[in-house]
Amino acid sequence: MFEEALTESRRYREAVAPEILGSLAEFLAIPNVTPGGLDRNAIWIRDELMRRGARSAVTQIPGAAPLVFGRVDGEPGGPTIGLYAHFDGQPADPSGWSSPPFTPTLRPGKVEDGAPVIPWPVPGERVDPDWRVYARGSADDRGAVAALLGALDARTGRRPAASLVFALEAEEEAGSPHLGEYLGLLADRLRADVWVVCDGPVHPNGSPVVAFGVRGMAEIEITVFGPPGDLHSGHFGDWAPNPAALLSGLVAGMRDEAGIPTIEGLAVSDPGEAARAAAAAVPEPADPGFAGDGGPSPWERALGSMLNVRGLAAAGVGERARNVVPRAATASLDLRLAAGQDPVGAVEAVRRHVAAAGFHLVEDEPDDTVRRAHRRIARVEGRAAYPGVRTALDDPGAATVVAAVEAAAGAAPVVIPSFGSSMPLHHFAALEAPLVIVPIANHDGNQHGSDENLRVGNLWYGIDLVAALLG
Amino acid sequence: MFEEALTESRRYREAVAPEILGSLAEFLAIPNVTPGGLDRNAIWIRDELMRRGARSAVTQIPGAAPLVFGRVDGEPGGPTIGLYAHFDGQPADPSGWSSPPFTPTLRPGKVEDGAPVIPWPVPGERVDPDWRVYARGSADDRGAVAALLGALDARTGRRPAASLVFALEAEEEAGSPHLGEYLGLLADRLRADVWVVCDGPVHPNGSPVVAFGVRGMAEIEITVFGPPGDLHSGHFGDWAPNPAALLSGLVAGMRDEAGIPTIEGLAVSDPGEAARAAAAAVPEPADPGFAGDGGPSPWERALGSMLNVRGLAAAGVGERARNVVPRAATASLDLRLAAGQDPVGAVEAVRRHVAAAGFHLVEDEPDDTVRRAHRRIARVEGRAAYPGVRTALDDPGAATVVAAVEAAAGAAPVVIPSFGSSMPLHHFAALEAPLVIVPIANHDGNQHGSDENLRVGNLWYGIDLVAALLG
Repeated sequence: MFEEALTESRRYREAVAPEILGSLAEFLAIPNVTPGGLDRNAIWIRDELMRRGARSAVTQIPGAAPLVFGRVDGEPGGPTIGLYAHFDGQPADPSGWSSPPFTPTLRPGKVEDGAPVIPWPVPGERVDPDWRVYARGSADDRGAVAALLGALDARTGRRPAASLVFALEAEEEAGSPHLGEYLGLLADRLRADVWVVCDGPVHPNGSPVVAFGVRGMAEIEITVFGPPGDLHSGHFGDWAPNPAALLSGLVAGMRDEAGIPTIEGLAVSDPGEAARAAAAAVPEPADPGFAGDGGPSPWERALGSMLNVRGLAAAGVGERARNVVPRAATASLDLRLAAGQDPVGAVEAVRRHVAAAGFHLVEDEPDDTVRRAHRRIARVEGRAAYPGVRTALDDPGAATVVAAVEAAAGAAPVVIPSFGSSMPLHHFAALEAPLVIVPIANHDGNQHGSDENLRVGNLWYGIDLVAALLG
Repeated sequence: MFEEALTESRRYREAVAPEILGSLAEFLAIPNVTPGGLDRNAIWIRDELMRRGARSAVTQIPGAAPLVFGRVDGEPGGPTIGLYAHFDGQPADPSGWSSPPFTPTLRPGKVEDGAPVIPWPVPGERVDPDWRVYARGSADDRGAVAALLGALDARTGRRPAASLVFALEAEEEAGSPHLGEYLGLLADRLRADVWVVCDGPVHPNGSPVVAFGVRGMAEIEITVFGPPGDLHSGHFGDWAPNPAALLSGLVAGMRDEAGIPTIEGLAVSDPGEAARAAAAAVPEPADPGFAGDGGPSPWERALGSMLNVRGLAAAGVGERARNVVPRAATASLDLRLAAGQDPVGAVEAVRRHVAAAGFHLVEDEPDDTVRRAHRRIARVEGRAAYPGVRTALDDPGAATVVAAVEAAAGAAPVVIPSFGSSMPLHHFAALEAPLVIVPIANHDGNQHGSDENLRVGNLWYGIDLVAALLG
């Protein structure tokens, strides 16, 4: 089924590898961290897509960065695949980079291993798949856009078996604030049997990955209020309520040592035998540098919810410590939600838990009357909540994608029922289609960091993958 | 017994009140926050003491600020009283002051209530006891030195019933780093039946105070170490040990809600019925602005030990929050010790408690091997520890002081078995005498703050007090 497309794709990238890298370098030279730069990226991408025969347009909601969307028609009656990628990047401070972030450079290996800058290859020159292209947005996530362009370029006139619709976003690094609105507006044009979210890195062992979900997210900040100001701890330490001590007890009672919330109303329903078995089959990650607890693998845990304590603050420690009862203490938490858990309800469950622990809940800094009336006072702020997403492992559309990945990579992918991390993929609900996440970038590409890079072999994998999806 | 001395003292201060304030103003105009200024203070004090017939000298340990010490001989066979005060002050930023901190000014009331600057009185002019002298070190603690000078000045040739030895320190605000050494070197010259530590403010209701002790102190900082660096909480939140969560549980298990340590080895022996009854009889403090717990008064609690959480820190909260498993979390604690508790042993008890909670103890940041071997890793740092001090309520020397206070103030003092706060009074152990703390300054004198001030009536009380002690 993928044979012909892959033969075409491989022949193409072997014949014109230097030219493909030249086009990628042209793309990566356009800064993708400013509104003007994102506009130029969008126009460049649209023009390149149209030159390759796709229908494509740039659209823009007022106040949002532009979105590039479009369509490639396949055989009538064939399936339709959706492809998502993003072309915006994390801010890039040039001082941390070995070469300027928007001057794409080629190296025969990793700069950390001493690989020097080499000249871009001339037409006909052999290109090594272990070469790397350094630039902001090479791995995260403009390589995925380049893979789409390459796969379209590789075609020799044959009509694809599948139709392809695509949405290329420019606000992913800002948390995709308008993605839901864009997808809602374009839902009629973006109907597909399955969406492929092309972002993130492949497995550290080099295996291709297909992930069927992500966790949702609720950011929660709990502040416990003590006396009206920092008080002398000698005089008041065994008299005034100590918000740092009260907060410690509260936080300690909200999760078990593996991070599973021990809060009423946050129970997670059984993800099912198939998901559990698939999660258990994911290869163990490499030594993370800390002692594990001997329990289930991270992939099995990622099917449940998790409460992380991401920050604590009360008065000062170290050189800044003073002998006071702090006036307040704050814990910042991120609650990762399993698919099916309601983020608004989750924040409410936390609020109820804090109230049940005897805290008087306030919305703002308490006034003198409230402070005199209650010894335990807390504010619970819930922020930026969105639900998780999980596609059934036996979804037929997803099965097509897994097959395409295996054909393109020449190896069965690692199937991950859910990432432990969170992405706002719930926005795709507007499209009423299942989705899977298929990364193409190398895992050691310094995404978000300096010296971000894309391994050429991973670009080849991406081109082959899109070619196989088109069929 | 105190009648004659007090008659003398009152007649003196009524006759020459303007001259006494003039001498105080001369004293307070000498800055007491720099080494040079402290030297000038010491010489001024010594000269004034000698002019009033006391034997006095300035001594100086290399690297320390000077100490003024000396003696006034009383009737042979009479008791000897020791008097401690300090003449150094907290740093004073003039920008926060209504008049420059070293330009003493007189006001007929509190500057916060709009009291203006008034001229210094001329000889013969009436002086109101509610007037206040504004300058750094007026209340804390040069007023006590001025009281000594006034009491000596008041004498009309009669030999005092008691002898007086004195030690006037210039490093109190720096934590008295050399006081123990000074007292040890001068022990033979400073023998007394009881020492009177003349520092701090009287009771907010204006009552005189005699305190029989202070708590000791151990500063403890506990750092729990997690992964080698901040890790992505989506991927690692239910896999890596979370030091902020572990620290919360640890801290919550170290004290009850009233701050009493729940650590084995920190039990406090019964302070005795007399101390408990005296503590219970101390007038209730004013409304502190927070809800109490309905338990014993702060003075009763001050007879025991207390563990305060004075600071917490792990990664960021609020705008600085990021989705990480923090690499470390720190709690800063101050452990207040009842008299008789060994501060070194107390730190060891905390260390044992942390180890018993399953933590592998380290002295420094753990290396990769330690991190891979232990899921719970903590560092316990104990700092600046010193023991508490408590004089028996029925001590005969202290009884003399209480009687003198009552005679000088015309009212029975509030007897406080122990302050909840800590002062390094254990240094007086070198003198092998009981001690009591007798403040003379008004409670609303902004000690350590800007617009520090001494109420004239409190200076009169101080002069009368020292006169009565001399007898």
